[in-house]
Amino acid sequence: MKNFYSFVGSDVGLWNVTNQNTIVGSALESVQRIEVINSPLNKLTEQGVWALQGFTSNVRYANRNEIVKLQAAQEGLNRNASVCAALIPIKKNAQWWAMSQDERRSIFEEQSHHTEIGLGYLPEIARQLHHSRDLGEQFDFITWFEFAPEHTELFNQLLAQLRATKEWQFVDREIDIRLEKKA
Amino acid sequence: MKNFYSFVGSDVGLWNVTNQNTIVGSALESVQRIEVINSPLNKLTEQGVWALQGFTSNVRYANRNEIVKLQAAQEGLNRNASVCAALIPIKKNAQWWAMSQDERRSIFEEQSHHTEIGLGYLPEIARQLHHSRDLGEQFDFITWFEFAPEHTELFNQLLAQLRATKEWQFVDREIDIRLEKKA
Repeated sequence: MKNFYSFVGSDVGLWNVTNQNTIVGSALESVQRIEVINSPLNKLTEQGVWALQGFTSNVRYANRNEIVKLQAAQEGLNRNASVCAALIPIKKNAQWWAMSQDERRSIFEEQSHHTEIGLGYLPEIARQLHHSRDLGEQFDFITWFEFAPEHTELFNQLLAQLRATKEWQFVDREIDIRLEKKA
Repeated sequence: MKNFYSFVGSDVGLWNVTNQNTIVGSALESVQRIEVINSPLNKLTEQGVWALQGFTSNVRYANRNEIVKLQAAQEGLNRNASVCAALIPIKKNAQWWAMSQDERRSIFEEQSHHTEIGLGYLPEIARQLHHSRDLGEQFDFITWFEFAPEHTELFNQLLAQLRATKEWQFVDREIDIRLEKKA
């Protein structure tokens, strides 16, 4: 399952935790490091203090016009300069998941401009979304962001913009974990 | 993972296979019976001749108006009279999955009337969709249908209507397995 990623919090791993902040809902136990493993959870990964998993998938909301703009502007993960990262797991409430596709799309883009906001931070802020809800995980989504140290303030602006949207009124748990790649 | 279902083909199980027909693409080995288990694949279920798994999830295409109509008309699985079932795994091609949400919705409903067609067969034909693609399975979707024996011809009409749509031009593998519940 090449599209599965596990995020294991403990005292080992490539990424040092520089800050772990609970934005809303219950906390995750504090850890010193995080390892990202391109596989589902297994007996090895489950030995961390905590372990989250999710899968990458097809786009769920973006229309063709938005995909064209994203593909033109975005850069991938693992850029040499991207020694900063953020792991942001979120959970949305039951009201969100009871909505129809058109209702969710309307809040996501027409009212909250989720993709449009993200486009304004490309290519500096790279991101990868992982879906967790269908796996019975404690979070619905795990987003992984990568950027250069000088773009940290830019990244903070992106989060502030997203958190001020109508879409975020449906987020009932969010943890913001900042990371630096070990030299 | 309460939303996971495994479909195990072998010579044991609650459902007798009465017909197994490859509609398009490569076949699945013929089996005599199928057991449906409300769990992900595990060492026990993997002992069948073949085993497929999928998860139920939130709706991906239906708008509010369509959901209201579906909820008003549909009945659940496990009705006493529903001793007939069909297990229909399908796989869509790469072109389908490269499309944006608006492009897929347009083909699914505005051009193919997928939900509208299904509504015409409610409440006689009950159905449950399972998602498999994100799990790296050989099929993208597994749909399970249940109906009374006297509605078999009605069910055949439903399939003929769906298979004639533009959406089905993107289906590159489909197996149609008909079942009867053991007395």
